[in-house]
Amino acid sequence: MSNILQGMRIVEGSAFVAVPLAGMTLAQMGADVIRFDRIGGGLDAKRWPVAPNGNSHFWAGMNKGKRSIAVDMRSDRGRELVTQIITAPGEDAGMFLTNLKVRGWMDHESLSKHRKDLIMVSLKGDRHGRPAVDYTVNPALGFPAITGPEGTTEPVAHALPAWDCIAGQLMVSTLLAAERHRLRTGKGQDAEFSLKDVAAAMLGNLGIIGDTAMGGPKRQKSGNALYGAYGQDFICADGQRIMVIGLTRRQWHGLMHVTQTKPQMDKFAARVGVDLDDEGVRYTHRSAITDILKPWFSALTSDDIGIMFDEQGVTWSLFRDFEAALADDSDLSTDNPMFSEIDNPGLGRFLVPGSPVAFSAHPRTDPAPAPALGLHTEEILADVVGLPDVEIASLFDTGIVQSPAYKVVHSAA
Amino acid sequence: MSNILQGMRIVEGSAFVAVPLAGMTLAQMGADVIRFDRIGGGLDAKRWPVAPNGNSHFWAGMNKGKRSIAVDMRSDRGRELVTQIITAPGEDAGMFLTNLKVRGWMDHESLSKHRKDLIMVSLKGDRHGRPAVDYTVNPALGFPAITGPEGTTEPVAHALPAWDCIAGQLMVSTLLAAERHRLRTGKGQDAEFSLKDVAAAMLGNLGIIGDTAMGGPKRQKSGNALYGAYGQDFICADGQRIMVIGLTRRQWHGLMHVTQTKPQMDKFAARVGVDLDDEGVRYTHRSAITDILKPWFSALTSDDIGIMFDEQGVTWSLFRDFEAALADDSDLSTDNPMFSEIDNPGLGRFLVPGSPVAFSAHPRTDPAPAPALGLHTEEILADVVGLPDVEIASLFDTGIVQSPAYKVVHSAA
Repeated sequence: MSNILQGMRIVEGSAFVAVPLAGMTLAQMGADVIRFDRIGGGLDAKRWPVAPNGNSHFWAGMNKGKRSIAVDMRSDRGRELVTQIITAPGEDAGMFLTNLKVRGWMDHESLSKHRKDLIMVSLKGDRHGRPAVDYTVNPALGFPAITGPEGTTEPVAHALPAWDCIAGQLMVSTLLAAERHRLRTGKGQDAEFSLKDVAAAMLGNLGIIGDTAMGGPKRQKSGNALYGAYGQDFICADGQRIMVIGLTRRQWHGLMHVTQTKPQMDKFAARVGVDLDDEGVRYTHRSAITDILKPWFSALTSDDIGIMFDEQGVTWSLFRDFEAALADDSDLSTDNPMFSEIDNPGLGRFLVPGSPVAFSAHPRTDPAPAPALGLHTEEILADVVGLPDVEIASLFDTGIVQSPAYKVVHSAA
Repeated sequence: MSNILQGMRIVEGSAFVAVPLAGMTLAQMGADVIRFDRIGGGLDAKRWPVAPNGNSHFWAGMNKGKRSIAVDMRSDRGRELVTQIITAPGEDAGMFLTNLKVRGWMDHESLSKHRKDLIMVSLKGDRHGRPAVDYTVNPALGFPAITGPEGTTEPVAHALPAWDCIAGQLMVSTLLAAERHRLRTGKGQDAEFSLKDVAAAMLGNLGIIGDTAMGGPKRQKSGNALYGAYGQDFICADGQRIMVIGLTRRQWHGLMHVTQTKPQMDKFAARVGVDLDDEGVRYTHRSAITDILKPWFSALTSDDIGIMFDEQGVTWSLFRDFEAALADDSDLSTDNPMFSEIDNPGLGRFLVPGSPVAFSAHPRTDPAPAPALGLHTEEILADVVGLPDVEIASLFDTGIVQSPAYKVVHSAA
């Protein structure tokens, strides 16, 4: 954790990937992020992967460093409490992130009655407000059609919820931009965007819309090849698979140099009458290039190749599964200052990432684990809402709020 | 374009996806983003997709709404100019985004001598500073091993440069967080992170590190299935492929309701002795669920299914390729206020996205196209560096800077 955003307080009403990731990113930059959930947990309380005891590794991963309050939002008093938490005073407060589709009491119109300069950032499924998830947005826009082995036709969806991750990061920027604007103008903000628009915009940003609209060649599946230049996977003598990159001119010449294939490449280029220094030509003729390189890779072990590639500054990597990555990659270990091994309540002790960003103004600190659901219920009611102890006790007694600690005390009484 | 960030000036020295995307995101929020490149263009000047005339759709997509200056950075004067542009005075200036690995004149130590409160955000390949790209980071950390058809073993890399897109958005947040800090403390910032750490952190955030470290079941490829609950693709009577989601309890019951399969699901659950209201059980038994649903999908056209699903609020989508998406999806059209059809110099007139974010404080405006390389060279030298006309003319004459317009005037003289 860094505390570059120390003092900021953000309230999050969320589920799944994008919005929890946004809140966690802000928490790991030092903001006080309060996630509220219904009693028993939100829609993602049991999201996979889960431990044998049913606790969610996903939830723990997405809610690190936040404070948690559990409230019965079916009750008027519960809704009133959540409204008070979201709109609590403070120059650095009054910011709300959500993907919960609640009309009425939890929309911007209602909430901003309680705090005129409220900043609310909402993520929708699509621009019409219809539900959409990474698993629907992705096929609708065409990426699965260009993913997977060359020559196959079956669409292949990505396993990483990429659009969610991108949308979550954009939500952080949106919040910070709106807060910057509020600091200067005093004005609140009702900002919103949709997961599908994030993906649709990226289709344009990557040049795919322009290329498609202007009748460019139909983009085909190209397996693990790097699109538009050279990059390919090879099987080494020890059976390991390696990815190697010849994207820039420098990378391409480095690759030819280490593999001593420049004479063969020159011969091929002369025969076909092309210039392999043109990145697009390398892509078009990637199959011939791969045929020239293949014997070199299949004659050497991945260890030997790795040493040579590192010495010569070739851009490359192994293909690993999650188990091998965690076992063998020192970037996934406490050698990496981003990671710490910490106790994760209900799950165990394992490697946990902090923010990828190193700020010079603040040293990195260990990441904080995710709270148990409702862990901070009592302190949030006291510190943020400003309720007296007796009222807090009554809220617990009537089941309008919940916390693991209070439950234990209560049932023992 | 929105102008929520109006007045901010950011300088970008970049290539490829992440950093150009960061600058473009800021430009589309209203910041003045100046991208500098070497004479002739940077490493991504010809990145695919390209038009038949060789102009890059990619470059145009990633640099929308920026100002461009072309400078010969091999010359002392050129390096001095870039330094002056990066460190030019102004409360809302002095911010620099880069993924160019330049030691000496363009590192934080050297630049901050010219402006003490400089904010610099650098993206590296990996934490050691070694080169890495989406195509190497992704296989190293294991996602291709869980992507692709069930039962296959060949790793499948995603076609979307997902890590780059995520890193680019994180760069925006990093810059805005650092600027917020500078506003309050007057202090500059030397912030950095690596593409590989962005991916490694996400492995933890998604719960995969915890699950793997604690000996959870090895994650297998599961084709286009939604991981951890129910979601699957089906072929309809008209040959179209549909994705349908049963992630939440509500989605799952809605799906059973529309397809009238609840009796069969109940019978299956009773026979096997499981509760399909448990999302993990739906994932474990997805193959049986799919078998029950399949006849319903294969008996109806995608149009008929779509109408029923929309009426009942089922979360679903078609699988499309880019051509079909652009032709048929109204979210990829000017019906969507995010998109405008604009003239893109050197490429043609086509649909271009603005920012996905709608801010209430500012109406959306049309996206601006990418500049031709060096288009704003003259005005940047005048407005930002403050050079007199005669000196600007001399810089053009000696080839230290370049612009398309100036070249034309010059050669006609």
